[in-house]
Amino acid sequence: MASESELIAALQAIFESAPEPDDRLLVGIGDDAAVISQPKGEVVLATDMSVEGVHFKREWSSLFEIGAKVAAANLADIYAMGGKPEYLLVAAALPAGFSVGEIQELARGIVDEASKVGARVVGGDLTAAKELVISIAVYGSVKEPVLRSGARVGDLVIINDLPGRSAAGWDLLQAGVRDERTMQHRRPVVDYLAARDFALAGVSAMADVSDGLVSELSHIARASGVGIEISTDEPIDFHGGEDHVFVATISPHLPFPRQAIEIGRVVLGKGVRVNGEMTSHQGFSALPE
Amino acid sequence: MASESELIAALQAIFESAPEPDDRLLVGIGDDAAVISQPKGEVVLATDMSVEGVHFKREWSSLFEIGAKVAAANLADIYAMGGKPEYLLVAAALPAGFSVGEIQELARGIVDEASKVGARVVGGDLTAAKELVISIAVYGSVKEPVLRSGARVGDLVIINDLPGRSAAGWDLLQAGVRDERTMQHRRPVVDYLAARDFALAGVSAMADVSDGLVSELSHIARASGVGIEISTDEPIDFHGGEDHVFVATISPHLPFPRQAIEIGRVVLGKGVRVNGEMTSHQGFSALPE
Repeated sequence: MASESELIAALQAIFESAPEPDDRLLVGIGDDAAVISQPKGEVVLATDMSVEGVHFKREWSSLFEIGAKVAAANLADIYAMGGKPEYLLVAAALPAGFSVGEIQELARGIVDEASKVGARVVGGDLTAAKELVISIAVYGSVKEPVLRSGARVGDLVIINDLPGRSAAGWDLLQAGVRDERTMQHRRPVVDYLAARDFALAGVSAMADVSDGLVSELSHIARASGVGIEISTDEPIDFHGGEDHVFVATISPHLPFPRQAIEIGRVVLGKGVRVNGEMTSHQGFSALPE
Repeated sequence: MASESELIAALQAIFESAPEPDDRLLVGIGDDAAVISQPKGEVVLATDMSVEGVHFKREWSSLFEIGAKVAAANLADIYAMGGKPEYLLVAAALPAGFSVGEIQELARGIVDEASKVGARVVGGDLTAAKELVISIAVYGSVKEPVLRSGARVGDLVIINDLPGRSAAGWDLLQAGVRDERTMQHRRPVVDYLAARDFALAGVSAMADVSDGLVSELSHIARASGVGIEISTDEPIDFHGGEDHVFVATISPHLPFPRQAIEIGRVVLGKGVRVNGEMTSHQGFSALPE
C-alpha cells in the first residue's frame, strides 16, 4: 500500500476530474473539511453505507460497479426528496491487500455515477477493515422538499418503472449466472430524470425503492396517516430492494407525469393492501439478525 | 434484533432529544434525507470513519465512549477549519448479536459529544457487517475558513495543549492497564473552544491532530509551500494521533491567543525539523499494509 498522502493525491486526481470548474467549491479535497458557498433554498443531506457480503460481493461485481452502485443509492435519496445532489463525501474502509489501482477503480465508479447528475466528490476518509465498507454522504439543494408525509386520500400511486430487477439479478448471481441480466444488481441504472419529472409534476409524496416497494409504501402510509391500495395486473416484485425506482403519490387533478405507471390509490385507513390483501411490509433489511 | 422501523424510532428519540427546538431543521430523521434551511456564509463538510479493532476495541471502551470519540473526530475537523458544526449524519454497520440497547448506547455517546457544541444528528443509515464500523459526516457553517495552506514565513507555530495522551492511553490499554490514564484514548476530551479562540485570533493555518503532530505540520508545510522548525523542551509526542489537539500558525504581529503554547516557527524551505533534525512525517495511519 502507498502512503496515505500518495493515495489521497491519486484519488484527488480522479475526484477532481470533473469537466467543468465549480465556482461554488471554495475548498475541495485535502484540508480538514470542504467549503462550499451557499445558493438560495434549502440544503438536503443523506447518507448510505454499503458492506461487502451484504450489499455486494467482489466476485460478482467490479469495483467500478460497486462504487457506482453506492453512489446511486445516495443520489437517489436526494432525488426522492425533490432535490438535486451536488457534493459527496466518501469514507471507505479497505481490507488488507487492497491495491491503489483497486481504490482508484472504486473512485472512478463513484465519479462516473455522480457525473451523471453533475455532482462531485469533495472529501472523504480512508481506513482499514476486515471487509470493504463504503459510506457516502451527500449534500444537495432543494426548493420544495417532497416528503413521505404528503400523501392525501384520493391521490394516485405511481412508479416510474417496475422494481425487482436488482433482486432478480441477485437471485441469478446466487444461481451462478453471470450475464447481462445480473447488471441491475451489479450496477442499477437509476432514472434520476423521472424523479425530477415527478417533483415538477407536483407529486404529494415520494420515495426511492431501496428496501422494496411495499416497505416504501408502508413508510409513506404511516408518515401520511393514510392507507394505500395497490391494484395491478403487472408482475411487480413488491419486496426486492436496491432498484431505486421512484414511487410517488399525486393528486388525480394534476396532469399525469410522463413515464408514470399507475399502480393504486391512497385511501382512508392505514397499511398497504395489494389486490385486496393486507401485506406485511418486510422489505430487504441489511440489519444483523 | 428489532425491526428496522422500531430501531429507527428508538434512535430518533435519542437523536431528537436536544433541549432546544431548531427552526432551521425543516425535515429530520425518517425521510429519504434531511432538509435544512440555509443561513448566510459558507457550508463546511467533513467525514470520518472508525472501525473496530483499528480505532477502538469494544473490550476497552464502552459504546458510549466509542460514539463520543467518533463524533469528536468529526467535530474537530470542522473547528479546525474555523467553522461551527451544526448537523451530523451517522451511518453504522453492526456486527451480529448487537442489541438495541447497545445501539442506543452508541447513539447516546454521539449525542453527548455533539451537544457540547450544539450540533445534532439529522439522519443516517444502519446495516450489518462483521465488525462495528461507524461513519459520521458533518455539516457546519464557516465565515472565514482557516486552511492548511495559509502559513506564512515568520509565523509562530502554536498548539492549545500537548498531544500524545490518546497514544499513551492506547499503550497502557495494550499493557493491560484499565485506569483513568486511558481515558484520553477511550474518549478524548477535545477543547473546541480553543480552536474557536485560535480562529478568532486570526491564525493563518490550522489543523486538528488526528494522525500525529509532525504529520499535521507536514500537511501544513506542504500546502503552504513553507518549512516548519519546531524547537521545544516540552516532552511532546510528535507521532501519536487522535487527540484532536489544534495546531496552528499565527503572525507574530497579532496578539498571542489565550491558552496557546508556542512550539516553533514557519521558515523558508520545506518539511518539518524538530530541534534541528529533519523528521519523517509518518503519523498514525489506519490504512491496511
